Amino acid sequence: MTHRFIADEWKIIEEGFSPEQNRFSESIFTLGNEHMGLRGFFEERYSGDSLPGIYLAGVYYPDKTKVGWWKIGYPESFAKVINSTNWIGIDIKINGVPLDLATNQFRAFRRELDMKNGRLTRSFIWVGPNGEEIAFTFSRFLSMSRKNIACLSVAVDPLNFSGVITLLPYLDGDVSNEDANYGEKFWTKINQEITDDTALLTMETKKTGFLVATTMAAQIIHQPGAPLQAKKELYSADQLVGYRYSVPVTAGTRFTLQKYVAVCTSRDFPRSELETISRSQLEAAVAAGYDRLYAEHRAQLHAKWEETDVVITGDIRAQQGIRYCIFQLLQTYTGSDPRLNIGPKGFSGEKYGGVVYWDTEAFCFPFYLYTNADTAKNLLFFRYHQLDKAKANAAKLGLKGALYPMVTIDGTECHNEWEITFEEIHRNGAIAYAIYNYTRYTGDHSYLLDYGLEVLVEISRFWADRVTYNPRKDCYMILGVTGPNEYENNVNNNWYTNLIAAWTLTYTMESLKFLEETNRQKYAAFVAKFQLTADELNLWRTINEKMYYPYVEELGIFEQHDLYMDKELQVVADIPPNELPLNKHWSWDRILRSCFIKQADVVQGLYFFPEKFDPDTIRRNFDFYEPRTVHESSLSPSVHSIVASRIGYKEKAYELYLRTARLDLDNYNADTDEGIHLTSMAGSWTAIVEGFAGLAVRDDRLSLTPYLPAAWTSYSFKISFRGRKLQITVDQEQVTIQLLTGAPLTIMVYDQELPLESERSRALRIR
Amino acid sequence: MTHRFIADEWKIIEEGFSPEQNRFSESIFTLGNEHMGLRGFFEERYSGDSLPGIYLAGVYYPDKTKVGWWKIGYPESFAKVINSTNWIGIDIKINGVPLDLATNQFRAFRRELDMKNGRLTRSFIWVGPNGEEIAFTFSRFLSMSRKNIACLSVAVDPLNFSGVITLLPYLDGDVSNEDANYGEKFWTKINQEITDDTALLTMETKKTGFLVATTMAAQIIHQPGAPLQAKKELYSADQLVGYRYSVPVTAGTRFTLQKYVAVCTSRDFPRSELETISRSQLEAAVAAGYDRLYAEHRAQLHAKWEETDVVITGDIRAQQGIRYCIFQLLQTYTGSDPRLNIGPKGFSGEKYGGVVYWDTEAFCFPFYLYTNADTAKNLLFFRYHQLDKAKANAAKLGLKGALYPMVTIDGTECHNEWEITFEEIHRNGAIAYAIYNYTRYTGDHSYLLDYGLEVLVEISRFWADRVTYNPRKDCYMILGVTGPNEYENNVNNNWYTNLIAAWTLTYTMESLKFLEETNRQKYAAFVAKFQLTADELNLWRTINEKMYYPYVEELGIFEQHDLYMDKELQVVADIPPNELPLNKHWSWDRILRSCFIKQADVVQGLYFFPEKFDPDTIRRNFDFYEPRTVHESSLSPSVHSIVASRIGYKEKAYELYLRTARLDLDNYNADTDEGIHLTSMAGSWTAIVEGFAGLAVRDDRLSLTPYLPAAWTSYSFKISFRGRKLQITVDQEQVTIQLLTGAPLTIMVYDQELPLESERSRALRIR
Repeated sequence: MTHRFIADEWKIIEEGFSPEQNRFSESIFTLGNEHMGLRGFFEERYSGDSLPGIYLAGVYYPDKTKVGWWKIGYPESFAKVINSTNWIGIDIKINGVPLDLATNQFRAFRRELDMKNGRLTRSFIWVGPNGEEIAFTFSRFLSMSRKNIACLSVAVDPLNFSGVITLLPYLDGDVSNEDANYGEKFWTKINQEITDDTALLTMETKKTGFLVATTMAAQIIHQPGAPLQAKKELYSADQLVGYRYSVPVTAGTRFTLQKYVAVCTSRDFPRSELETISRSQLEAAVAAGYDRLYAEHRAQLHAKWEETDVVITGDIRAQQGIRYCIFQLLQTYTGSDPRLNIGPKGFSGEKYGGVVYWDTEAFCFPFYLYTNADTAKNLLFFRYHQLDKAKANAAKLGLKGALYPMVTIDGTECHNEWEITFEEIHRNGAIAYAIYNYTRYTGDHSYLLDYGLEVLVEISRFWADRVTYNPRKDCYMILGVTGPNEYENNVNNNWYTNLIAAWTLTYTMESLKFLEETNRQKYAAFVAKFQLTADELNLWRTINEKMYYPYVEELGIFEQHDLYMDKELQVVADIPPNELPLNKHWSWDRILRSCFIKQADVVQGLYFFPEKFDPDTIRRNFDFYEPRTVHESSLSPSVHSIVASRIGYKEKAYELYLRTARLDLDNYNADTDEGIHLTSMAGSWTAIVEGFAGLAVRDDRLSLTPYLPAAWTSYSFKISFRGRKLQITVDQEQVTIQLLTGAPLTIMVYDQELPLESERSRALRIR
Repeated sequence: MTHRFIADEWKIIEEGFSPEQNRFSESIFTLGNEHMGLRGFFEERYSGDSLPGIYLAGVYYPDKTKVGWWKIGYPESFAKVINSTNWIGIDIKINGVPLDLATNQFRAFRRELDMKNGRLTRSFIWVGPNGEEIAFTFSRFLSMSRKNIACLSVAVDPLNFSGVITLLPYLDGDVSNEDANYGEKFWTKINQEITDDTALLTMETKKTGFLVATTMAAQIIHQPGAPLQAKKELYSADQLVGYRYSVPVTAGTRFTLQKYVAVCTSRDFPRSELETISRSQLEAAVAAGYDRLYAEHRAQLHAKWEETDVVITGDIRAQQGIRYCIFQLLQTYTGSDPRLNIGPKGFSGEKYGGVVYWDTEAFCFPFYLYTNADTAKNLLFFRYHQLDKAKANAAKLGLKGALYPMVTIDGTECHNEWEITFEEIHRNGAIAYAIYNYTRYTGDHSYLLDYGLEVLVEISRFWADRVTYNPRKDCYMILGVTGPNEYENNVNNNWYTNLIAAWTLTYTMESLKFLEETNRQKYAAFVAKFQLTADELNLWRTINEKMYYPYVEELGIFEQHDLYMDKELQVVADIPPNELPLNKHWSWDRILRSCFIKQADVVQGLYFFPEKFDPDTIRRNFDFYEPRTVHESSLSPSVHSIVASRIGYKEKAYELYLRTARLDLDNYNADTDEGIHLTSMAGSWTAIVEGFAGLAVRDDRLSLTPYLPAAWTSYSFKISFRGRKLQITVDQEQVTIQLLTGAPLTIMVYDQELPLESERSRALRIR
């Protein structure tokens, strides 16, 4: 493992430029503010390999499905959050020659992402053909406090250069996606205007009709007392507006160009006022100025750090790794808008199209739930608002109830592989589980009873229709599914799927009972509205009772699915290292035939429902399945790490933790060029909190079973729990818990009651 | 069932034009001559719905694969035989207004396909706005004797019309495919020239570089003594050359335009001489004239009819149906070129891209084998010449030996669904089986020993590597396959696949033994060349001995694949009729989960290897599986019909026969608009010969067990067998066998020896 970035607690620093790793670095240096985000590509034109990408949350295009042979039920389109108006661009010319790091000489290249303050800077010294040197320093941030505003600057210092430097900050609507299925462009120009103060470009997405009005202002700042002869011209071309500044300089004539951008979309504002609002937001930003905007932005981000930070001592790279994870989560989603969700790559690339997978509920949810349950609640609402489409999705497959899509942005299924779209139905269970998880953690049943129960009932109806009764064996089976392990498709009775299906039925019935017991009138209204009958509930009960679970008697383990044990039973250690990862070396059928597991499958069930299984059972299953798991989904190691922590496999837990904590910074899977693995980053956080610290809610009480990974000196994190804020610190001696705010509370630590009072710390020796 | 076409023994006659059924009729009226073919679309421009298509055998384009999510092993492209230069076109104007049956008035529309003579005629009377009438009669044929030549004519009879009729026969290279994956055009223009005598258009396919030089001549013929004032102009536009004839007419001025076309490709001729050859072929054709060309063509086709015709009396639609099947087979493939093969739709449409499936070996082979074994031999050579690519295909999947592609034209795999491409590997067995079938029928081991054995060894090596040894059950399994029933994917131990894999191993070992016993020197050379070891042969033997076959004890049937019996066991009669065919009504996952079978799977094995199973076993399996089979592959009914005949289910056999014999003429599956079901047509022929007549080779002897379907008065067919020609006639009383030519021969009829002498008939009462 070579580390590309300098170890630093709060910063990601890259020194030197590597053209062949440019896409990778662009991914790493992604910035976002939930409303919008962009990859870390250059302001100036770059003729080398690059994936420019500026994305607007929720602004998508339904790209026509690309599929081999159409089958009934396939979605017509794949919604993708698309590359949008380039507002980062600044063309730079030096004596008329374009600045281009692919062809020019330069030195002292450095990028620095300041995670604490949410700003990216880049600097280098351009070297001319005759040894002239100009120092350039770029900075950019996307305001966390004014979500429509981005600011950037470029400071120019002609060290020993005399001549003319031209800078052309622009807005360019003529952008495209690399992954456009049929090479189409997705935008139509609606308007472009430029005045001396403001440039405006309004674009509209084809088909979906999202209107986006982007405005820009720019200004040259120079040192007092050193006046500058900058000439400013308005520049306009098709779908492009900008200002051309021609600045004659001599050595030491330092100046800075500031560019202010406002990006407003018809998702947030009325179409008719969009341009006016964009202009007025821009105007306010310019009036505030770069420094005040930056200060506001930092303050907002610091407040999020206050909720979410994990402090690790004794291992600076671990500290850097976990902060990078948290930083990217905060850049992508902070729960301010229930119409938004978390794409697997955030704003860092085109892959997976910025759309939503079960990753959200299964992997991201705890991070938001434990740090700020309101943000988690908005993730629940996202699904609640799409319930009708989930019902339509089930109906399309000839089934009752609701089947949430495998991939979606607006509730419509987007995925185009039958074995996933139609068969990876366990996702429905994760959506039910998130409701349970939220309710269990917050102790607040209002979401469950006012909204969640509707979702649960419709998911239960789906399961009840999707099972097959087997009269020969007098049991219920679920045929033709793909489990979380996508390295086997179209199997019967995936243990995890059967488990979460049956669990959904029981949790729905329990929740209905809870409603009946706590609010009889509301219960009656609910039953009437959903036409719930005793027969239906009896059927759910019977299905749960007679659910079939494949089991391997002689090993005392659950069988991942029927016939799994007929596979050639190797372990990952048997695979020659040069054939890993399998998905880059083996043909698909070979992967399918093999016993190798892509990500937690049986183990996912053990993770979700630890109370259902005794430690020996968990250990036996872990011992069997983990050595056969290639962890080729970035979502896999964290779940395994948590389960390993629970069964006392501390070294294994830490080893697995390491596989995601710096997955992108160290480009572990050699695919970060396509974007970061955002949803697995949440798993890294959870591996610390639920794994190392053992945080859980048991019997309605917060519980901890902390230990310290051997490589660390200490770690510390905060959680928000039922109106309290707690800080948990684990070092080599003890675990210290401080109730920062909120009413007194008794928690369980190692099965021992620990009463907490406000602002007082309590400590216990770690075990 | 409504019959669109008039019942006729030798003709397909359509009276009246139905625009909404135009694509269907275009498919039905497809003509071909093995070298080229075209759908029955109009000569004149037609602005209504139509699928123009003119295809050249073996001239293909590798269209970039369209696939959802790429996986290792997928082919980069899908080769398709593409729409090529339109040489059928004749623009017609009446007083300057285009003739267009989509917008004009007309009456007495009639199309007539004369199957005996291989010519299509079309006639109608155009009705002008003031009641003027002009009779048009078009005819076309593709010469069976001069494969590069096509002739067409249009006779014009201005019944009560006076004015100018303009005819513009042309060649148009600007054609496209409806199914172009990315909307591309596949041709580049190389040359176009026009002189007073000859128009030439040379086009080249992109990527594959097939050069096609098409030349055209035209002339106006009129009645002697009624001179015509036709003005002729040369016409040229981009990728288009033609002659414009302006003919002033009054009522009764009849005339005929004849168009001669020569189509030569670089598959057959040197590129540098292609245009010259095309011109000289055209010149010879024009010199011969329409009538002589037609006479030559008919004579050639009659000779093929002499080999292949089936005469049915007592049921004119059955007669018409089987002749249509035979006609289309003869149009598509007559074995003159071992580089050609049989696409599932012949020249009748774009679907399946004119490429080759296992249909050839499993369904078409007997028709060619029994009527003219040399043509069948060329089908074997087709695969033999592609052995290296089949080895590369296996290697791509990390496997030894040869895996023939699911879909190919040049030996490269084209299919883009993992569950088919990588898993429907039973196709390999059918290719081995055809070698066995050929050798068994002809009694000639030379192909086997000189060529076939190489194919068998490499296929056996594939099987031996593809099986999985299961130590827990001490048996060999084949995991992750799709059987012939494509309505279930990625199953373990498809019974048919396991059967044909094990059979391949034994047949290969038997063939090696035969070689050893008959030619020890050649055997030694073979063993050395292929590095066959005793270990390898032992492994094959062990795999065969320990092959696992799923079986349902309590029913005494083979299980289609592991876990089939866990499905909900319905029968087709349980499906509401408005939900059939399933593939147009049910979502794909529902089809997969169901017990319903697309086409013969277990029954395919019973069909191939009747001697391996006793009649009760065959009956039990047929009784279980046939009622669960939806026959949604056109290949299914014929195989079931043959097996039904063998077990004495005569009514069932006839019912199943009817489902393919007129499948296209009656548009049974409502999809003939996309093209005819050519490969299933061969099955109809086989259902008569192997089914009703019970023809087989047993113990190296020709054997018959004929019966007469109740709806018929008699049927009669000829076969070619080991140097003899035999005619078999079955009527209500007896079966009559005549040895038409060749040495005396003893055959078995109903297990009774029947010696045959030349030209003498022998008759036996039918049972």
